[in-house]
Amino acid sequence: MIAQNLTFVPCAAMLHTAVLLISCPDQKGLVAAIADFLLRHDANILHADQHQDAELKLFLMRVEWDLHGFNLNLDEFSSAFRPIAERFGMTWRLAESSRKPRLAVFVSKFDHCLADLLYRYQSGELHCELPIIVSNHEDTRWLAEAYHIPYQFLAMNKEDKHETESTQLAILRDQKIDFIVLARYMQVLSPEFIRHFPHRIINIHHSFLPAFHGAKPYHRAFERGVKLIGATAHYVTETLDDGPIIEQDVARMSHRDSLGDLINKGADLEKVVLSRAVKWHLDNRVLVYANKTVVFD
Amino acid sequence: MIAQNLTFVPCAAMLHTAVLLISCPDQKGLVAAIADFLLRHDANILHADQHQDAELKLFLMRVEWDLHGFNLNLDEFSSAFRPIAERFGMTWRLAESSRKPRLAVFVSKFDHCLADLLYRYQSGELHCELPIIVSNHEDTRWLAEAYHIPYQFLAMNKEDKHETESTQLAILRDQKIDFIVLARYMQVLSPEFIRHFPHRIINIHHSFLPAFHGAKPYHRAFERGVKLIGATAHYVTETLDDGPIIEQDVARMSHRDSLGDLINKGADLEKVVLSRAVKWHLDNRVLVYANKTVVFD
Amino acid sequence: MIAQNLTFVPCAAMLHTAVLLISCPDQKGLVAAIADFLLRHDANILHADQHQDAELKLFLMRVEWDLHGFNLNLDEFSSAFRPIAERFGMTWRLAESSRKPRLAVFVSKFDHCLADLLYRYQSGELHCELPIIVSNHEDTRWLAEAYHIPYQFLAMNKEDKHETESTQLAILRDQKIDFIVLARYMQVLSPEFIRHFPHRIINIHHSFLPAFHGAKPYHRAFERGVKLIGATAHYVTETLDDGPIIEQDVARMSHRDSLGDLINKGADLEKVVLSRAVKWHLDNRVLVYANKTVVFD
Amino acid sequence: MIAQNLTFVPCAAMLHTAVLLISCPDQKGLVAAIADFLLRHDANILHADQHQDAELKLFLMRVEWDLHGFNLNLDEFSSAFRPIAERFGMTWRLAESSRKPRLAVFVSKFDHCLADLLYRYQSGELHCELPIIVSNHEDTRWLAEAYHIPYQFLAMNKEDKHETESTQLAILRDQKIDFIVLARYMQVLSPEFIRHFPHRIINIHHSFLPAFHGAKPYHRAFERGVKLIGATAHYVTETLDDGPIIEQDVARMSHRDSLGDLINKGADLEKVVLSRAVKWHLDNRVLVYANKTVVFD
Repeated sequence: MIAQNLTFVPCAAMLHTAVLLISCPDQKGLVAAIADFLLRHDANILHADQHQDAELKLFLMRVEWDLHGFNLNLDEFSSAFRPIAERFGMTWRLAESSRKPRLAVFVSKFDHCLADLLYRYQSGELHCELPIIVSNHEDTRWLAEAYHIPYQFLAMNKEDKHETESTQLAILRDQKIDFIVLARYMQVLSPEFIRHFPHRIINIHHSFLPAFHGAKPYHRAFERGVKLIGATAHYVTETLDDGPIIEQDVARMSHRDSLGDLINKGADLEKVVLSRAVKWHLDNRVLVYANKTVVFD
Repeated sequence: MIAQNLTFVPCAAMLHTAVLLISCPDQKGLVAAIADFLLRHDANILHADQHQDAELKLFLMRVEWDLHGFNLNLDEFSSAFRPIAERFGMTWRLAESSRKPRLAVFVSKFDHCLADLLYRYQSGELHCELPIIVSNHEDTRWLAEAYHIPYQFLAMNKEDKHETESTQLAILRDQKIDFIVLARYMQVLSPEFIRHFPHRIINIHHSFLPAFHGAKPYHRAFERGVKLIGATAHYVTETLDDGPIIEQDVARMSHRDSLGDLINKGADLEKVVLSRAVKWHLDNRVLVYANKTVVFD
Repeated sequence: MIAQNLTFVPCAAMLHTAVLLISCPDQKGLVAAIADFLLRHDANILHADQHQDAELKLFLMRVEWDLHGFNLNLDEFSSAFRPIAERFGMTWRLAESSRKPRLAVFVSKFDHCLADLLYRYQSGELHCELPIIVSNHEDTRWLAEAYHIPYQFLAMNKEDKHETESTQLAILRDQKIDFIVLARYMQVLSPEFIRHFPHRIINIHHSFLPAFHGAKPYHRAFERGVKLIGATAHYVTETLDDGPIIEQDVARMSHRDSLGDLINKGADLEKVVLSRAVKWHLDNRVLVYANKTVVFD
Repeated sequence: MIAQNLTFVPCAAMLHTAVLLISCPDQKGLVAAIADFLLRHDANILHADQHQDAELKLFLMRVEWDLHGFNLNLDEFSSAFRPIAERFGMTWRLAESSRKPRLAVFVSKFDHCLADLLYRYQSGELHCELPIIVSNHEDTRWLAEAYHIPYQFLAMNKEDKHETESTQLAILRDQKIDFIVLARYMQVLSPEFIRHFPHRIINIHHSFLPAFHGAKPYHRAFERGVKLIGATAHYVTETLDDGPIIEQDVARMSHRDSLGDLINKGADLEKVVLSRAVKWHLDNRVLVYANKTVVFD
């Protein structure tokens, strides 16, 4: 109830910026070449962060600059940057802050992650478009309607799973979807589906100490008397629940927590961890390599 | 995306239970007298927790029992329990789980705490009625409407503050409000107002290390380069921001966090800390004494 | 560098107290019977805490009282309490604060946990005797000598493991050891050995999210890019690393942490988690049931 | 008790490296100029991290390279780098990993921080020399002796404080001390003393939520029923306890914690926070500007 004048400061996302993400074998002259290229085109660098993986001899970099004053049209960036990229064997990606990625959220019955994502989307914290929510249940339609987001219900049965996934893919194509968030979507995606969105599907997974595999993990964690429960947000790969980890966190439990408390605290944890991962993905902070991630902060 | 059968277990709140909260000078025979009383009336005790404040020689207790099989009508509890209460000089309070307290949320422009409370209310996590949201701004009306909660706008000007508070009090009386949550309500309540709700108004307050008093605390914390920001949920007393603390938590900062990041992380923290405090209050877990609280867990 | 007058307040451990730990099937009249028994003998209760496991219908209790004024000789406690214990089918244990348990620490080459335990022992934080350190290496002898604790080196070879364990057991018997802490002891104890100390051997175990079994867990966690590492302190049972959990905690990692950093942070975590578990065990706060623990706080 | 082959990997500190720390007004061409300079001298960059303070328009950088193959003698670094430094108005500092800074620890009666520092020093975690411990009490001499570190007792009385500080300064000069750690040194240093070690004295300070100034802060925090206690490590400046913050952390409290528990948990927190700050300082990760720090991680 303190009267404070909280005037939001414009953050980098509100400027018109470009982000360049690079990975390549580590070698001398890399930073000099990149810095020189940006300088020649009058880039005003806002953030630059690099990481060397000493084990794998890899160089990973994220650099963000203000496009105001940058003397290279982004359409021509690719051809201008190609000589450097080829010389150093770079894998690279350019993202422009003015272009909002298009997100589809997949959800089943549990609505805690969806509710959290919708609030953050609406408040402007998640810098994306959200044209579609896809679900195999009707339970969360009310939330989609409260936030005025189209809601696509598609029943999911074992026998016609392949067909349903085809329908989903058609919708995603139609909506020009860039990436997918599985907000407690209780269906295993097929490898074919996943191949359409490499490192562009984010999932949230309970993860206990020690790990409980299989069904009813919260029940088993409760029986075991764990003192912490965890959650992991990761990219979905064809190896079930084994994709590159983006973020993890834990919450403390005690013997006083009932199974219901444990599930509630798990839900709270899942939404926080998932939202962080989605935000970092949207801010182009996550670089995947060798089944792990660098999260540039 | 793991298929787990998550069937919610009924928690104590779904049973029909009674909670007795007691504080009195510590003395021999207390527990025996209370336990004997409950046994004589066939109470099936679900939880019992007690605390001795060794400094102040105080005894504090929370006991919850199943009303199924309890052979005393709650209307007669007071007269039946009186002899024990008087013998030991007890301050006590009885709450019945089937009676949901009626909550009014006060809010100004920031909507993060309100959105979080509404989601938790709607999902059944907060065991209360929420008949009214009161605000000195129109900004958050859309949220109230999405969750179908009546929204009362009352402009707040310095000159007629006293009058506006009177109108608020009339509304609260009308709605039979039991307690108030200040969900980032940016107005200082008058002592007269507070006296109507002793230890029944919960506020959320930023709290930094070191503490920054006065205006724009986030700006000042940013200038000082703090590595942690905090939030405190407390009962409102007539001493500004100095009431009994219910819950506190912190979030980590680094030099990479802009002022905007700091404000966002502060908001996330505020809503989590406030929601925990409200939940504990509703579960009759919080006992106030000597300007501090016991939170029975 | 602030001049504060820090005069340590005497804590309960410095009083002459008794702790009673009880577990039995939950039933009406339990608390009344125990409270009445203690009242009849003029016990001045300092702490009482109870827990109901609703799943297993179990009642678990810890009660601590000042022995000053208690009108029952502890030698006669057992026969005086027997009628109540038998009536309710109790498993119970009485501990007296003036009697310090005798601890043996087992250690191999890593000394971080040992160093932490020794410092806490010396400072009076761990309320026990520490008559012997047992090791299969000579590396940590210098630490034992700095703190003036006898150090027993026993080479451990696969072929004569059984014989070495017999020697260890003889030493433990000789020293009247009550419980053992495995402070990064890199040998698997035989079931026979463990049977001599049921729920009286505490081990510290790395535990990652998700769990990494087998050799070189830190290396594997590093390869997987985990964002958290964990540690678990547990009682040793015959099922390897699967005994009742006493305490767990985590530390945060980022891509900037080298494998060396990860190992260092893991070591720091291990010692903190182990020390907490040992302290709680010594304070008679840990009650084991159904392969889990209640840690009364 | 798991048999894992833990073979320590050599970390950067074990290579022969150089670290360059730079701060200057942010401007185009900075990174290119530095990268080009290092490339021309065949530096093999191991880590590079930079930060832009958007508010103050400052550029801050840390770059570390392997000296193996670097074709510039470090004696000549200064003159070779001067043109760039002058062109961009840089404040800079070069550190060589093979040269261990010389640390003096100041301590009074509380020994928890000293014990922790000594263990980490002995284990090789703190990359420094530790030729002297200075104290105004004899209480911690036993610890110094266990680790074979010279211990200088100097009584501190109000009347001859200035003289004692002169003696201290002479000892520090004599021992060629680079920086000082106040490991719970309960004396206020004079501004004259501090001026000899600008941003080279690290102190550990309790910091509560809300902040408690003045004497007996733990007592006052206990009375107020705080749910968290904190600690802050900072550089000592002439403004008491208001120097640039290096690290902060908190520990959770409940009503069950006695004042003694609170003091113990505070002590545990203080040593962890102080050790982190000292380690980062030694790794040349901390850059001070505008009364705050960048901690390059």
